[in-house]
Amino acid sequence: MQRILSSQLTHHVGATVRIAGWVHRRRLLKSVAFLIVRDAAGLAQVVVTDPAVRAAVESLPEETVVEVVGTVVANATAPAGVELAEPTVRPLGPPAVPPPFDLYRPALTATLPTQLDHAPTALRHPTRSAALRISAAAVAGFRAALDARGFVEIHTPKVVASSTESGANVFALDWFGRPAYLAQSPQFYKQLMVGVFERVYEVGPVFRAEPHDTVRHLAQYTSLDVELGFVADHRDVMAVLRETLAGMLAEVAARAGGALATLGLTLPEVPAEIPAVHFTEALKIAGAPADEPDLAPAHERALGEWALREHGSDFLFVTGYPMAKRPFYTHPDPARPTHSNGFDLLFRGMELVTGGQRLHRHEDYLAALAARGEPVEPYAGYVDAFRHGMPPHGGFAIGLERFVARLTGAANVREVTAFPRDLHRLTP
Amino acid sequence: MQRILSSQLTHHVGATVRIAGWVHRRRLLKSVAFLIVRDAAGLAQVVVTDPAVRAAVESLPEETVVEVVGTVVANATAPAGVELAEPTVRPLGPPAVPPPFDLYRPALTATLPTQLDHAPTALRHPTRSAALRISAAAVAGFRAALDARGFVEIHTPKVVASSTESGANVFALDWFGRPAYLAQSPQFYKQLMVGVFERVYEVGPVFRAEPHDTVRHLAQYTSLDVELGFVADHRDVMAVLRETLAGMLAEVAARAGGALATLGLTLPEVPAEIPAVHFTEALKIAGAPADEPDLAPAHERALGEWALREHGSDFLFVTGYPMAKRPFYTHPDPARPTHSNGFDLLFRGMELVTGGQRLHRHEDYLAALAARGEPVEPYAGYVDAFRHGMPPHGGFAIGLERFVARLTGAANVREVTAFPRDLHRLTP
Repeated sequence: MQRILSSQLTHHVGATVRIAGWVHRRRLLKSVAFLIVRDAAGLAQVVVTDPAVRAAVESLPEETVVEVVGTVVANATAPAGVELAEPTVRPLGPPAVPPPFDLYRPALTATLPTQLDHAPTALRHPTRSAALRISAAAVAGFRAALDARGFVEIHTPKVVASSTESGANVFALDWFGRPAYLAQSPQFYKQLMVGVFERVYEVGPVFRAEPHDTVRHLAQYTSLDVELGFVADHRDVMAVLRETLAGMLAEVAARAGGALATLGLTLPEVPAEIPAVHFTEALKIAGAPADEPDLAPAHERALGEWALREHGSDFLFVTGYPMAKRPFYTHPDPARPTHSNGFDLLFRGMELVTGGQRLHRHEDYLAALAARGEPVEPYAGYVDAFRHGMPPHGGFAIGLERFVARLTGAANVREVTAFPRDLHRLTP
Repeated sequence: MQRILSSQLTHHVGATVRIAGWVHRRRLLKSVAFLIVRDAAGLAQVVVTDPAVRAAVESLPEETVVEVVGTVVANATAPAGVELAEPTVRPLGPPAVPPPFDLYRPALTATLPTQLDHAPTALRHPTRSAALRISAAAVAGFRAALDARGFVEIHTPKVVASSTESGANVFALDWFGRPAYLAQSPQFYKQLMVGVFERVYEVGPVFRAEPHDTVRHLAQYTSLDVELGFVADHRDVMAVLRETLAGMLAEVAARAGGALATLGLTLPEVPAEIPAVHFTEALKIAGAPADEPDLAPAHERALGEWALREHGSDFLFVTGYPMAKRPFYTHPDPARPTHSNGFDLLFRGMELVTGGQRLHRHEDYLAALAARGEPVEPYAGYVDAFRHGMPPHGGFAIGLERFVARLTGAANVREVTAFPRDLHRLTP
């Protein structure tokens, strides 16, 4: 008999079926016992009256893997309106050792460190797995939106000969006796690949030896990177980002409806045109001094409130960040070269995406590095490529875990990461 | 005027259009000059008769980025039957320095090391970019096939506290003062996630400190990993692999038709049922001694010829490899415990995929490690999870670069890798 999933039971009322999954919960009443089986699709209720079957169920602790054959019976009081009656119950492995928290309670009551220490079982809780399902759907939407617009997926090196972007926060390793570093981003590679495909994206791990222990930082996270050529300026990049975000949320709605329901979430709307303010204007709105070089978290919160109040939007672009606070490859605003063609996207008052137009002329790279007092040599393989013809281009990067945390309202990115890596955590 | 791609020119005969791309080639004849522009979609021919425009074109070396506005004219002798006449040509950047090889020739004549040293420009050659387009399409097909079958995409740590699978060939790094290693595979994590989602996959980098300099090995490659629970045995895994391969090839056909044409390739057929032979039978077919513990490359070639001759198949499963040659988490064949429920998939006489059923009982892990004289401690976080209820499960891993190399007939995996990493190469 073919196994069916719990979600298919409603289509088999009256039939004998086989299900399999984990013992999620047992409720041993006087005259009847209920066995709740959890599988990939959800929960199924099994009603046990036979004393021998009941004895078997009593010997199977929570999380034991079982197979149940029974008859599907309609019962309006059961979950999804159906239950399995007159079952036979067969374990598919030895009795499980229950984890140090109850997976059947609506919320995991264990502390986050305990959950992370026991990730293989904590992730089985419906709230934890729901966040990862939303994450998977968001990535699928990211790719679908970009595939539909002629982007090509790339895979780039995660070990590099010199540290990218800045010398700080890099992990050093021994590469066959030579010093090497874990890549902090695919920034240089995605730009070089614009010369090949014009439009590229990558989904992959990036590594930051972040010495701070915060709720927002991971030492490894999943970066959703995009780069496109033949742009007029950063606004063409912002338009692609808007389409990409809309695609991500549409795919979350389409693929992860059950996960959204589990977490009680309503997805935000992406406006047809996301409101945008220049950095200097943003400072005024946030009530910050006009000479601030960057936006503090409190400023971002004020801007988020303003965007919701004035534009009914959860999203807000801030453009024209001062050049001093952006990386050396950032393209300046030609009309106002102290400010950049770089932008941030705020979501509900927090920075979600950073992007912008990049330099595309070889001489501009040499000048930008010289102006910062940085040598060219560590960047040679990257900078040299701009001698061979690169179009005006730009791009952006979305941190997947932050995106999901903000979407789900998780207070800590570790709640939406399967096996987080940070200053303290290298296992499991 | 909106830019259009070269592939759209045929829809605009008689109209004035704007294209942009790289100067692919210039042919300066006496009375006329031809400018071939390369963009993401292919090549466009521009006919120049005006002396001033000709002078401009003469000053723009190959690989300079240009924008051309002109009238689309039908010309049966031009590529795709159209060309641009009476053009204006405007550079979008400074004149390019041409790379040390001609990108307009049908094949790149530079040696592979030269190509790899100059990857940002070498990858612009249509044969090199075609392989990467096939790669992107294959990965898209991999995901689509698995998404349709209820698999969930995961992202797992690439830095681990102890080396996985074997102590050899690992890269060591300094993790905030603690020793750590680059992950050789997501094997343990994908198994643990079967406990959460039943069916999972991951596309990500894996790292092997492979000290041999061969045409088949990279120190970083992209692994397509799959794991699924509630299997009867390895044959359920093989069935999913067959469907996944068929999905990959279907997506290559659908998305990368132009790339296949560029490389002159015909895709193999995946039989509805891929023929399978047991390891002991495989030894006989290959004419190998009955006590051989593994298949040598010559044996695999003989088996590939046999599969084509006897079954008309480019693919052949070999099942039941001796336990001694498989990793400790391999599930033995219950009827013949010296042999495993592990398999390899051969493609045209070369190993393409390794997979099998895994152990799922905690006590079996302890016994397997003890039998090999290995301590449990380095594997504790992994092995302990099996106390908490894991279903019978199995999976497989496809090396993306090897898959594409075999599909395209590339002699060296580096030919189908954008920026390879190996014993000698850490740049660009």
